[in-house]
Amino acid sequence: MDPAKLQALLEAVQAGSTDVDAAMAALRELPYEELGYARVDHHRALRTGFPEVIYCPGKSSAQIAGIFERLIARHDQVMATRCSPEVAQEVQAAVPDLVYHAIPRLLTKGYRAPEAPTAWIAVFAAGTADLSVAEEAAITAEMGGVGVRRVWDVGVAGIHRLLDQRHQLEGVQAVIAVAGMEGALASVVGGLTDKPVIGVPTSVGYGASFGGTAALLAMLNSCAAGLAVVNIDNGFGAGHLAARIARQAVRDFA
Amino acid sequence: MDPAKLQALLEAVQAGSTDVDAAMAALRELPYEELGYARVDHHRALRTGFPEVIYCPGKSSAQIAGIFERLIARHDQVMATRCSPEVAQEVQAAVPDLVYHAIPRLLTKGYRAPEAPTAWIAVFAAGTADLSVAEEAAITAEMGGVGVRRVWDVGVAGIHRLLDQRHQLEGVQAVIAVAGMEGALASVVGGLTDKPVIGVPTSVGYGASFGGTAALLAMLNSCAAGLAVVNIDNGFGAGHLAARIARQAVRDFA
Amino acid sequence: MDPAKLQALLEAVQAGSTDVDAAMAALRELPYEELGYARVDHHRALRTGFPEVIYCPGKSSAQIAGIFERLIARHDQVMATRCSPEVAQEVQAAVPDLVYHAIPRLLTKGYRAPEAPTAWIAVFAAGTADLSVAEEAAITAEMGGVGVRRVWDVGVAGIHRLLDQRHQLEGVQAVIAVAGMEGALASVVGGLTDKPVIGVPTSVGYGASFGGTAALLAMLNSCAAGLAVVNIDNGFGAGHLAARIARQAVRDFA
Amino acid sequence: MDPAKLQALLEAVQAGSTDVDAAMAALRELPYEELGYARVDHHRALRTGFPEVIYCPGKSSAQIAGIFERLIARHDQVMATRCSPEVAQEVQAAVPDLVYHAIPRLLTKGYRAPEAPTAWIAVFAAGTADLSVAEEAAITAEMGGVGVRRVWDVGVAGIHRLLDQRHQLEGVQAVIAVAGMEGALASVVGGLTDKPVIGVPTSVGYGASFGGTAALLAMLNSCAAGLAVVNIDNGFGAGHLAARIARQAVRDFA
Amino acid sequence: MDPAKLQALLEAVQAGSTDVDAAMAALRELPYEELGYARVDHHRALRTGFPEVIYCPGKSSAQIAGIFERLIARHDQVMATRCSPEVAQEVQAAVPDLVYHAIPRLLTKGYRAPEAPTAWIAVFAAGTADLSVAEEAAITAEMGGVGVRRVWDVGVAGIHRLLDQRHQLEGVQAVIAVAGMEGALASVVGGLTDKPVIGVPTSVGYGASFGGTAALLAMLNSCAAGLAVVNIDNGFGAGHLAARIARQAVRDFA
Amino acid sequence: MDPAKLQALLEAVQAGSTDVDAAMAALRELPYEELGYARVDHHRALRTGFPEVIYCPGKSSAQIAGIFERLIARHDQVMATRCSPEVAQEVQAAVPDLVYHAIPRLLTKGYRAPEAPTAWIAVFAAGTADLSVAEEAAITAEMGGVGVRRVWDVGVAGIHRLLDQRHQLEGVQAVIAVAGMEGALASVVGGLTDKPVIGVPTSVGYGASFGGTAALLAMLNSCAAGLAVVNIDNGFGAGHLAARIARQAVRDFA
Amino acid sequence: MDPAKLQALLEAVQAGSTDVDAAMAALRELPYEELGYARVDHHRALRTGFPEVIYCPGKSSAQIAGIFERLIARHDQVMATRCSPEVAQEVQAAVPDLVYHAIPRLLTKGYRAPEAPTAWIAVFAAGTADLSVAEEAAITAEMGGVGVRRVWDVGVAGIHRLLDQRHQLEGVQAVIAVAGMEGALASVVGGLTDKPVIGVPTSVGYGASFGGTAALLAMLNSCAAGLAVVNIDNGFGAGHLAARIARQAVRDFA
Amino acid sequence: MDPAKLQALLEAVQAGSTDVDAAMAALRELPYEELGYARVDHHRALRTGFPEVIYCPGKSSAQIAGIFERLIARHDQVMATRCSPEVAQEVQAAVPDLVYHAIPRLLTKGYRAPEAPTAWIAVFAAGTADLSVAEEAAITAEMGGVGVRRVWDVGVAGIHRLLDQRHQLEGVQAVIAVAGMEGALASVVGGLTDKPVIGVPTSVGYGASFGGTAALLAMLNSCAAGLAVVNIDNGFGAGHLAARIARQAVRDFA
Repeated sequence: MDPAKLQALLEAVQAGSTDVDAAMAALRELPYEELGYARVDHHRALRTGFPEVIYCPGKSSAQIAGIFERLIARHDQVMATRCSPEVAQEVQAAVPDLVYHAIPRLLTKGYRAPEAPTAWIAVFAAGTADLSVAEEAAITAEMGGVGVRRVWDVGVAGIHRLLDQRHQLEGVQAVIAVAGMEGALASVVGGLTDKPVIGVPTSVGYGASFGGTAALLAMLNSCAAGLAVVNIDNGFGAGHLAARIARQAVRDFA
Repeated sequence: MDPAKLQALLEAVQAGSTDVDAAMAALRELPYEELGYARVDHHRALRTGFPEVIYCPGKSSAQIAGIFERLIARHDQVMATRCSPEVAQEVQAAVPDLVYHAIPRLLTKGYRAPEAPTAWIAVFAAGTADLSVAEEAAITAEMGGVGVRRVWDVGVAGIHRLLDQRHQLEGVQAVIAVAGMEGALASVVGGLTDKPVIGVPTSVGYGASFGGTAALLAMLNSCAAGLAVVNIDNGFGAGHLAARIARQAVRDFA
Repeated sequence: MDPAKLQALLEAVQAGSTDVDAAMAALRELPYEELGYARVDHHRALRTGFPEVIYCPGKSSAQIAGIFERLIARHDQVMATRCSPEVAQEVQAAVPDLVYHAIPRLLTKGYRAPEAPTAWIAVFAAGTADLSVAEEAAITAEMGGVGVRRVWDVGVAGIHRLLDQRHQLEGVQAVIAVAGMEGALASVVGGLTDKPVIGVPTSVGYGASFGGTAALLAMLNSCAAGLAVVNIDNGFGAGHLAARIARQAVRDFA
Repeated sequence: MDPAKLQALLEAVQAGSTDVDAAMAALRELPYEELGYARVDHHRALRTGFPEVIYCPGKSSAQIAGIFERLIARHDQVMATRCSPEVAQEVQAAVPDLVYHAIPRLLTKGYRAPEAPTAWIAVFAAGTADLSVAEEAAITAEMGGVGVRRVWDVGVAGIHRLLDQRHQLEGVQAVIAVAGMEGALASVVGGLTDKPVIGVPTSVGYGASFGGTAALLAMLNSCAAGLAVVNIDNGFGAGHLAARIARQAVRDFA
Repeated sequence: MDPAKLQALLEAVQAGSTDVDAAMAALRELPYEELGYARVDHHRALRTGFPEVIYCPGKSSAQIAGIFERLIARHDQVMATRCSPEVAQEVQAAVPDLVYHAIPRLLTKGYRAPEAPTAWIAVFAAGTADLSVAEEAAITAEMGGVGVRRVWDVGVAGIHRLLDQRHQLEGVQAVIAVAGMEGALASVVGGLTDKPVIGVPTSVGYGASFGGTAALLAMLNSCAAGLAVVNIDNGFGAGHLAARIARQAVRDFA
Repeated sequence: MDPAKLQALLEAVQAGSTDVDAAMAALRELPYEELGYARVDHHRALRTGFPEVIYCPGKSSAQIAGIFERLIARHDQVMATRCSPEVAQEVQAAVPDLVYHAIPRLLTKGYRAPEAPTAWIAVFAAGTADLSVAEEAAITAEMGGVGVRRVWDVGVAGIHRLLDQRHQLEGVQAVIAVAGMEGALASVVGGLTDKPVIGVPTSVGYGASFGGTAALLAMLNSCAAGLAVVNIDNGFGAGHLAARIARQAVRDFA
Repeated sequence: MDPAKLQALLEAVQAGSTDVDAAMAALRELPYEELGYARVDHHRALRTGFPEVIYCPGKSSAQIAGIFERLIARHDQVMATRCSPEVAQEVQAAVPDLVYHAIPRLLTKGYRAPEAPTAWIAVFAAGTADLSVAEEAAITAEMGGVGVRRVWDVGVAGIHRLLDQRHQLEGVQAVIAVAGMEGALASVVGGLTDKPVIGVPTSVGYGASFGGTAALLAMLNSCAAGLAVVNIDNGFGAGHLAARIARQAVRDFA
Repeated sequence: MDPAKLQALLEAVQAGSTDVDAAMAALRELPYEELGYARVDHHRALRTGFPEVIYCPGKSSAQIAGIFERLIARHDQVMATRCSPEVAQEVQAAVPDLVYHAIPRLLTKGYRAPEAPTAWIAVFAAGTADLSVAEEAAITAEMGGVGVRRVWDVGVAGIHRLLDQRHQLEGVQAVIAVAGMEGALASVVGGLTDKPVIGVPTSVGYGASFGGTAALLAMLNSCAAGLAVVNIDNGFGAGHLAARIARQAVRDFA
């Protein structure tokens, strides 16, 4: 029931052309979900500034291009995740002004790193092989208006490289730790900061890493407080959550 | 190298009784961890207000009592988690003024729900069997100075009970969703709010729940953005992280 | 917003004491969940005839007794599942007229096998060790008003005992196959009937049965069409679903 | 022993050319399976109206074409599942009048959605990536003579889209819930209806979805009553079972 | 249909009091399972000499005693497996002449090692902790009339103890290899003989043995030909199968 | 040290050209494994009639061809398992007189089904997709000189097709049951015979079959006695073991 | 065949009292395992100094006492692992001079920490709950004559406590890292030293630690070179291996 | 803070231009990680002689070539692991003097087997399919200056081939056992030597080997003392650790 219909109903009651019982019945049947939907819309408005996202796997290039076009008509920033180079090329041929980020396999419209962000996160990544996931997290957060400190190649087996970068944990509102293999980076980072930490296990590894399961379990069992975990390779989820936390913590977004 | 020793060294340089090369050598050998340790201490000071925590499993009642006494000497609030009623009784006999919370199996000193908190979280729990974990999260957050809205028995199989409580998601800075069995509560709550959401899978269930693994996997695979997950039954971890996020988002704690 | 309040609002519009815009605003704020809740209630009414259920694990005897009393006040039939003999004795001491069924560990109020049921199901169980789960399914269905044919000890390793009972598959509207170990009963029964079949894997077994996982996987991979599966040891779920299917298929319940 | 042989034996007894003992011996050796086979045939006749099905994986195009031809000779409706586009093209070149459904990867002969069905099911699918499985279920049921309401893209993270479609649960005799990732759709749908619900976990997801295992476990552990589950991606099985249930519940099929 | 009824029918045909068509109809309805059951009985007779077996878990002492009595009435040898000392004592109090074997936790009636067996098997066990399972296998085979060579404590980490016993592999018709932990005994024994080898993984071990899973997987992946595996701790199954193989290979049993 | 060398040494001692100490030293250094090797050789001789086997995965066509040539020089029958069509073609180009069996992906030299075998096995396979494994078992046994009854397409969901073939279990010395999906065939066959039964789970299936794990677990948990199991898809292992058992049971091979 | 017998045989050949063929036959029958056994004995001699070990689970107190007595008769140092306090008390009552170590649950005879060891290892343990396993490793190594530096409570979440103890890694020949939960200690220690590191995962943890599996996988996937892993909770194995490595690296043991 | 700056600071103190308090403050802020980094550098220097390593998966040929060039500038020996032939060819085109080892898929610069090594290891491999991993271990150790005895094709199913090679265990300082399938080689080798043994499970196998998990579990559960395990297929890790152990045990490297 859209507002126009509701107004018409109430006016009919006011005018006496519909009696109270009939209006009661009509309202009882009222598909509240539509009101609910409006509230959702309102929520969405509040979230403005976060990019709209297309998850590419299982969609054809034509479908992705079509969704891009619809979203671009209404949003400044749109991004597509897990987009192979081949698909990216085809979508770019159909939709102008898209940028392809090869390492995180993202296709973006309107991406720009925020110029003078007031909210900041840090993304720590253990190895070069984790960069694809780490960049996905970083760009997601940047599209959400949050500044990102990228701290790469700080795996725990060379603990001093990590400690050298400890100052990067200051002045941010959330930290993301990206690691495959034994996933210990999240625990060590968690012990070095009292900011909220989001662990992202990656599928980097072989043998008994079981596709990232080893890192996932390690992060879930971390003895560091203040740490929560997202799905294996879910850089987008971590970037989005970290941006939520950071923006909430900064006056300018409030 | 403690500050006194460092000062003595520098004074010796100043006085000329130690030359620069010898001081260089001494400093090169300087066990930086001690300086580091000092910084850690500083960090700990910043964290003041969070309770000190004792994890009971594998410790004797005497050990737990001893640790309580040491911590009480320096901290206002101390809590022990996963404490059985039998152990609690023995520890209470040894240490005065401890309160035992039977459902979350917590033993606390100095616990009080914050009187007029400026930071708030909401804890949603799916079933009555999840209350032990949910209360652990709630009390942990309260001991961190954060107000807690407890929303119990809102499992997704009766979606309207959950929707009836949706207003509880307003005016908080973080949300915890506690659920066993299929763990779907986290996804649905995640779709109803744009606050950071922390999922806590519980071991409630039988058969193919595999001790909470089903709920854990469900939460990790949630299609809702803005959700991260802690270990099965880790109410403490969720409460601690939610309080970190909430306090950071509120001016009074900054 | 309860109906009385809604009626008052509409009457105010009709009377002109509230104008349309104000009523629009009030209705826009209307907590639709309450209407929704009413619909749920209506649904519940439609379900009348199914027993109300208490899941015992994690609840104290006092809690179970309390819930029993509340439910008995409004319902003819109430049952509690997975109730140990000790708990049952304590609850029976507090609540009169409860019957304890030792094998399926059920505690019931108002249970009676339906006298001349029009809807029927058959419950096939592979071994004597599966009877606990099978009886839980059977009694659940009977409390739902459905007749139950109990066919015990028809494991597939003695296929003729099963074939001897094949006539029991005639004249029922749904079939439950309960089996642990290799769980093959569900496949064989599924091949002998074109009724809907519900498989219930049980935790009967040892070693590589992994607590019923072997039987669960076997049933999920069955080559028989028309078969679906519930959780390990979930006799209640199977009995409830089978009764739903059977009642729907019979005019008298429609 | 076919009927002709049996009749000859009995006539020989009647005529006295075979005595009772010899007939006893012959009958004792009687391969009852042949009688049994006849009963199976009778059963099959009862099932008429359900399509014959070819499972393509592991079969060559020539084999699939051959089986199609044999089945088409005796049946109006035949369908092949999990058929790749390449194989479909080759089979279509060999067998006339086959239709290929690209999304569910089905190849059908004689498929038509029933025109004025008396039995109905609803198929709810969480995401667009689940459509392949959902369509397999829908077309299977339609080939079984049952009307299908397709309700797509109603994942639980946007609960209002799902609630908006709740009316689709009215007037059907069975519901299928198709979901990958966290598989929560089945629980929520199960809480909204008292129709039999069949959950179909899909392999949609990545990382800790473990090829659909997360969704499978979630559905098996659902706190909603009246729900059973089929194998991951088994749209055919769900469609077939739902059609069985729905047809049984409707007079016209009885 | 029992033989008497069948004979009566045929006599009626012979006598002309029943015509062929009526007899045809009666026979078509004949519950062939009963004939089938007879064949099963016949098979059972062929198997005479193998002990009847009672699986104790999940049965009360009274039930076990009752089954013992019924079986003893018709069989010389009866055995009960996985019987705890407490249960054994209670059953022995009720049933005379039972012998309890503490290590394999067997309760037997009529057990005697065969005096001059013509068929032989060898049972190799890796460690003393595996003896419970190994003895269960050995006594099962002996009750089946087969001689057993017991070769204990020949784990592969001391390969020479095993090689020293290699002559025990000569002159037997089947070999059982019982091992927990890494389960390598089966592979090494399988490489030393060309007799059929049955591997029995045991649950002996801790940590990553996962209750015998490590040994089970090792045996299933053995590079030795001529080896098959039974369930974890299934000494009975191995003993029974080995006795089948050995008896079949020896003229005296043919 | 081969016998010739040993004889030469002893003759030198006898002749006095080597004294006792030197012979002692030579013998002390004697690699006793070579004696052992001789015993192995002897064993191998006893096994004559079994084919030599090449496991293809991980070997190049050239390597496979080379091994074929070496083995053909000394053996009448050689076979290569898991050989892709492409590799087979290359090997056949290099080695004359090889036959490729496309379904079981075997490449054989000197294969002929035994003409009038005295030992027999039966191979039961559940579905057409299991034929690759079943044929590997059958041909392996035939190359071992054993007759094979092939009983295809007797899955348990159509139990009568299986019962119709029950007579095939008579007159054989061992039975192989090959099945994927729920793997129930092994249990049912195991209940129909008292011959040794070898179960071969196959990787046929999808979703929760987990590459054959469901069938493997089902067979390991079978309630049928007299059944043991080989690795998933290990048709060769089953065929080899069944042939061992069958040949041993028949006088002509003794 | 001992050397004396061999010499006699050769002298007989030399003397002509045994001809070559008879000697050939005798040597062919030579039980080489006995020679092998002698070599094993020799090896054992080389190993002198390592304690003899009794693994208690599955053995009665009487059995353990008996084995202790036999071993004490020939060895200075004997130890029993995984010995509960109750069993220890009973064994101590039967065997004099045994010492019970409550934390590692060891029962030892002749244990003394080496007085002035030349070989050293370091044992790092993450948490107090890991001490049971860490002490088992330490005492095992000490009984092997190696000095042990115990470094407790250096979990990675407080990285500075660990770095403070880094000097303990100097001057040892092997390092053991003991950790439960996320097991990250092994990786960090592995990155701080170039000594051989042995990781011991412990079962300390809950939920998704799966009994130590998380720590085990983490250690196996460590990005640190020079690290190998033993079974969960296997302190004995780690202590034994570390002592082997350390003793080998030090002249005094060579 | 680099040494120059530190020296300047101390000279300023000495000269009186900076007072002690200001120097204290400066030093307190001193980024100790830089000192730490220097220590790390020193450690690296101590490790000289071990090759620098590039892990290829996830890196482009250009990246690998670039890293090679940077490392070659400073190191004599560099190696890249898990390098496909295609990538190797491209890297070789860009960087001169690289050698590709096809079986272990290594690309090396400056590899030469040590000419007269004083430290030795032995690498035992079970099957030809394990050679890729075994050679990776061997070459890694050789590049670390350690001599390697390669003992191939000594799987436990032919135990005599292994025993024939037992002398290869003499005179080495560490042993590597490489095996897939059931992984029993590590246990048997561990029982034949008192040298430190490193087990390397490989992913060789199929079905229930689960990608090497069976071998991994077997090795972790080995009953042989003195054995530790690295990740599945981690030949590099084993070779590196074995070389560490061996070099440490030999005076010339000390």
